[in-house]
Amino acid sequence: MIKVGGSLVSDKCTDDHLDATAVRDYASLVADLVRTFPGRAVFVAGGGALGHGSVRDLDAADEFASLGLTNATFAVKWAWTTAFREAGIRAMPMQVAAICSERGDGIAADITVVRRLLAEGVLPVLSGDCVLTAAGGLRIFGSDHVPGMLIEDSLAPVRIVTLTDVPGILTGSSEDDPVLPWVDADDPAPAHKLVWEAAEWDTSGAMGGKLDALVAHAQRGAECVVTGGDRYAAGLRHMFAPIAEWPQAVPYTLIARATPPRDNSRVGGRG
Amino acid sequence: MIKVGGSLVSDKCTDDHLDATAVRDYASLVADLVRTFPGRAVFVAGGGALGHGSVRDLDAADEFASLGLTNATFAVKWAWTTAFREAGIRAMPMQVAAICSERGDGIAADITVVRRLLAEGVLPVLSGDCVLTAAGGLRIFGSDHVPGMLIEDSLAPVRIVTLTDVPGILTGSSEDDPVLPWVDADDPAPAHKLVWEAAEWDTSGAMGGKLDALVAHAQRGAECVVTGGDRYAAGLRHMFAPIAEWPQAVPYTLIARATPPRDNSRVGGRG
Repeated sequence: MIKVGGSLVSDKCTDDHLDATAVRDYASLVADLVRTFPGRAVFVAGGGALGHGSVRDLDAADEFASLGLTNATFAVKWAWTTAFREAGIRAMPMQVAAICSERGDGIAADITVVRRLLAEGVLPVLSGDCVLTAAGGLRIFGSDHVPGMLIEDSLAPVRIVTLTDVPGILTGSSEDDPVLPWVDADDPAPAHKLVWEAAEWDTSGAMGGKLDALVAHAQRGAECVVTGGDRYAAGLRHMFAPIAEWPQAVPYTLIARATPPRDNSRVGGRG
Repeated sequence: MIKVGGSLVSDKCTDDHLDATAVRDYASLVADLVRTFPGRAVFVAGGGALGHGSVRDLDAADEFASLGLTNATFAVKWAWTTAFREAGIRAMPMQVAAICSERGDGIAADITVVRRLLAEGVLPVLSGDCVLTAAGGLRIFGSDHVPGMLIEDSLAPVRIVTLTDVPGILTGSSEDDPVLPWVDADDPAPAHKLVWEAAEWDTSGAMGGKLDALVAHAQRGAECVVTGGDRYAAGLRHMFAPIAEWPQAVPYTLIARATPPRDNSRVGGRG
């Protein structure tokens, strides 16, 4: 699963910005990946400005207040779908709110159509959405949580790669500081501390929430990677290689249960 | 299930017309119904101009050519959803393409979220869409076919009321001619003949296709009604009454297996 963070293609300070050229650049990279590994990729679009814009200043008394998110993120999915089609691959947007809802013990999802799209080599295009809660209202179901609905035996093994505007979880106060190479999904406290310390200057906005979501996915068996997005990258095909074989020039934070295969990072062991 | 035909709220000769005032009037009528019978109504929006506009002049060589329909009809659903919310009820759009796909033996659907919305008294807002075919392409799944996905034991008995721009299946060449009161779902040939004879002057466009779809639903146990839409109607509550109790002033064509309870029509027996 590849998630492109909204911050890479839009300015979250606005309510409706989406950079069509950036979308096209990333879509072209993902299209190459889908052509190379047909039926093995699922795309998750970050909500970006449109998503955030639709859920600002919600009326707390209205349990359906977040409904606008399903419309806003459909527009985001459609922009990506159009770009994927222009890049020459078949892609299809899927409204997560129609296939997911909350139960007492978590999210229940029916992924029949997603699974069939994959079998046909079509790229499913998902996004964050609002979902029906166990209590009958709606709540925000952010795009970092969406990959969780696809962690199941029929699709295993699952890798979730989140492209964002920082090169991973930073160990210091600037982007020049090294990236934390590994978060043990069974002991994420040290990484949490790092993110908390970073909160003051962190420009990625929601690394804490992202970390929580990815730790939960990793505990269910997924291998999660946070890395920087580069719309001008030569390619993304390394994403389907064992993580030990990823280019040394690509910093990342791996969030997983297994011991990380690459331990030559400058800050190895701090997690 | 209540379907409001696209012809009632848009001009199908254009590619993008939607009459916001007409949508608001019908939404207000449906909202009254939902308040009176919470959790018992499902709304199906006809695609109208936006739907038709998105699938005109498709490239026959492109098996994903009808993809635009899922975006166009999402916009239609959102317009209705907004109007329902303004009319004071909770409603939620559901992308049919995400929960339905074609199998060798028909359409497979997962209606978990729809069922849960009903349980919470929320109005599910559906529409026609494109669906994945058994062969891996996409095909148009018109709004007259959508109610079929909800004919199942857990929701029985199901009544499907289609509001359109004619008062039912006409027995003659003008709207002043009587309406065929009943189509026997097990012997629809006489009604077919009528629709074929009418094709020359028929302004409702697709009564033949509508009839086929409703006959199929009736054969699966639904009680189907085609009747005229009136945005200024006093109310729609009769729709939840036994059909024998509907106002005499409301002409309709019943498509069902059972013998029709009302046989005082001027053209009774012709079907």
